[in-house]
Amino acid sequence: MTVGIGIAGAGTVGGALVRRLIDEHAALEAKTGLDLEVRRIAVSDVAKPRPFTVSDGVLTGDALTLIDDPGIDVVVEVMGGTGVAAEVVLGALQAGKPVVTANKELVAERGPELFAAAAQSGVPLLFEAAVGGGIPLIRPLAETLAGERILRVLGIVNGTTNYILSRMADDGATYADALAAAQGLGYAEPDPTADVSGADATSKAAILAGLAFGTWIDTTAVHREGIAGIRRADIGFAGDLGYVIKLLSVAERTPSGVSVRVYPAMVPKGHPLASIRGATNAVFIQGASVGELLLAGPGAGSGPTATAVLGDVIDAAADLLSHARVAPRIRVAPAEVVDFGVIATKWYVRLEVEDRPGVLAAIATAFGDHGVSIKSVRQEGRGDRAIVLVVTHRAPEAQQRSAVAAIAALDVVAEVGAVFRVESDEA
Amino acid sequence: MTVGIGIAGAGTVGGALVRRLIDEHAALEAKTGLDLEVRRIAVSDVAKPRPFTVSDGVLTGDALTLIDDPGIDVVVEVMGGTGVAAEVVLGALQAGKPVVTANKELVAERGPELFAAAAQSGVPLLFEAAVGGGIPLIRPLAETLAGERILRVLGIVNGTTNYILSRMADDGATYADALAAAQGLGYAEPDPTADVSGADATSKAAILAGLAFGTWIDTTAVHREGIAGIRRADIGFAGDLGYVIKLLSVAERTPSGVSVRVYPAMVPKGHPLASIRGATNAVFIQGASVGELLLAGPGAGSGPTATAVLGDVIDAAADLLSHARVAPRIRVAPAEVVDFGVIATKWYVRLEVEDRPGVLAAIATAFGDHGVSIKSVRQEGRGDRAIVLVVTHRAPEAQQRSAVAAIAALDVVAEVGAVFRVESDEA
Repeated sequence: MTVGIGIAGAGTVGGALVRRLIDEHAALEAKTGLDLEVRRIAVSDVAKPRPFTVSDGVLTGDALTLIDDPGIDVVVEVMGGTGVAAEVVLGALQAGKPVVTANKELVAERGPELFAAAAQSGVPLLFEAAVGGGIPLIRPLAETLAGERILRVLGIVNGTTNYILSRMADDGATYADALAAAQGLGYAEPDPTADVSGADATSKAAILAGLAFGTWIDTTAVHREGIAGIRRADIGFAGDLGYVIKLLSVAERTPSGVSVRVYPAMVPKGHPLASIRGATNAVFIQGASVGELLLAGPGAGSGPTATAVLGDVIDAAADLLSHARVAPRIRVAPAEVVDFGVIATKWYVRLEVEDRPGVLAAIATAFGDHGVSIKSVRQEGRGDRAIVLVVTHRAPEAQQRSAVAAIAALDVVAEVGAVFRVESDEA
Repeated sequence: MTVGIGIAGAGTVGGALVRRLIDEHAALEAKTGLDLEVRRIAVSDVAKPRPFTVSDGVLTGDALTLIDDPGIDVVVEVMGGTGVAAEVVLGALQAGKPVVTANKELVAERGPELFAAAAQSGVPLLFEAAVGGGIPLIRPLAETLAGERILRVLGIVNGTTNYILSRMADDGATYADALAAAQGLGYAEPDPTADVSGADATSKAAILAGLAFGTWIDTTAVHREGIAGIRRADIGFAGDLGYVIKLLSVAERTPSGVSVRVYPAMVPKGHPLASIRGATNAVFIQGASVGELLLAGPGAGSGPTATAVLGDVIDAAADLLSHARVAPRIRVAPAEVVDFGVIATKWYVRLEVEDRPGVLAAIATAFGDHGVSIKSVRQEGRGDRAIVLVVTHRAPEAQQRSAVAAIAALDVVAEVGAVFRVESDEA
């Protein structure tokens, strides 16, 4: 049976998708039994040259026409943003059309509203490409692990920042040089803010938390820190101490609620995420029964992302053929978000101190006064100034912060140079 | 809505599944909206004590009663084997009931017949637990990657043999000692044949190939070698040469057809599969567009396997609620299986030779005569006998075999001690 596809957006991913649907049409039909026909492609400039050839009338400048076009059975949104894209997705769902989107920002920000519209119409809203590019993630979390009590998800879900951090760790590059290299390779945008600030990883963290825990977290409730300003020195010290610094999206179930946070953290070198280098993404899942899973692969790029979109398109088309009124697989219960202050992690603290007797004692006392016990202390360099590296045992965020604030106020401490949480299962 | 579940088999996996369905009933309902009720459990001995409590009449000695019991909406087969299990699965599908099975042997051997019965009735046959235990694998291959041209799948899909090989590599254990340790931990059966012969990995390889390429391979057409008889010496030499020995299930697309094979192979230490240790399973997928994916986790055990079964049960139950007539997602085209003789790999060959001049020249000449070029040669030990380790460049199986047969016939060669293929992307 022929299924009419309408695609909003023909940029990197949309262009690759159109080419796949055209070039691999026969192979896809042989494999899936579906005749997937691209009937309309909405672009911002219909006159611009494209890497594909379509009949007259297929290109349109108005994405909203996909909603009511009777020839379009499945709507694909790969234009991005939360403006017109939101209108297209919501409108199509309300019109009873299955929707496939790669738009993490839209799903993270308006997920519950979109799922409700999908459930109302009995059509699926699929977004495998929204997190982790070509890595199967959404379906495994939402379906394969539907019966699992997931405890924690740790993700490296932004390839740009992982590339930058890998270059800094592996080649000793500065942050500025690694960022410039990422921009040269097209991994980072000219304005890299969305990546390096952790905003992109935050949308993805919210989606992962939603799927893992069946709750939807407002992205503004996610604690977020980016990677700008990370210094080579800390990456080097991390290595000496047996850690690698990664920008992590963390979604965790705690006795008092869900915690979702994004920050550069130290990961033990033996952890499966430590060896994830460059633009590769990976998600590490811990479940009460299933134990530990690692799903890794290319987190971006037109080929992998188009594969994920295409898998969803095939799924939506097959659902259409089976005349299913799709029961929503994603439940959106209200989330109890736990206060970040109670989240216990180990901390790494780099201090610039005066090199004189009694300094370490003062620092240790300050940690102790705030209920934070020290795992290791190490002093680097001698002279007027010395560097002290402290790794603490696990303690709540609020106590760690108070301790570090007290230490910063000590006469002998010139500066708190850097602070990183350590994500590990050790106490 | 209440969905009645009938379970055939209450062994390790079945028992864990029943407990989860009972103990986590409320949490599952909150998360999925489904009231999953265990209505019948078929066991071989109804009098035997069980790790769960059910009402009178739930236990039955006759698994075939699940087929026609009107209270049972979804049938779960976790009894194993290809006798009664096949009757239950086929009977339930023919009766129009969705079936969930963890039975890799049954799916591998009778897949096409079962899929046809499922398609005929418009109900799903789900088997996420059949390969890779708790790792999401079946759904990612069949659905997320439905639009991908998969080129190669390399799997470590038998935890018992991976545990044995890991113990030999990491602790220097002999094969016999490592097997005994695996038996002591319950990883290996008292009769370990199904695992160590590669038979279990062969069923799984056939399933992976079927999903990856949309063709179904008869398990008898899979080239199979087990791990019994692997010597510590070769594991040590492999390490010196930069490789790890793993029992691999390989499914590969070649220009002339599909190749499926199971054998202990050398994997470069930098390959993502090289670091998969102990009872962990992992599948490495290479696709034309998606690039490289790694899916890893616990490949066996009651908890992870029950999670996979439960995910399928939830999926089948949700499908029932959406009144879908399920279009079969798995297509079974006739497979062109390529002759193993044309498959090109690199070989590692360990030779016991007389330690005298001209030996290496004779060996190199024999390889060259059969069109096999040598990547490296290394001689270990001196005296009457020496050990020569040869790693060749990539050449077809048939040529490698002819070369090694010719070398075995040389006067100066006492013995061909071992042969392993090297699976790597290098020439």
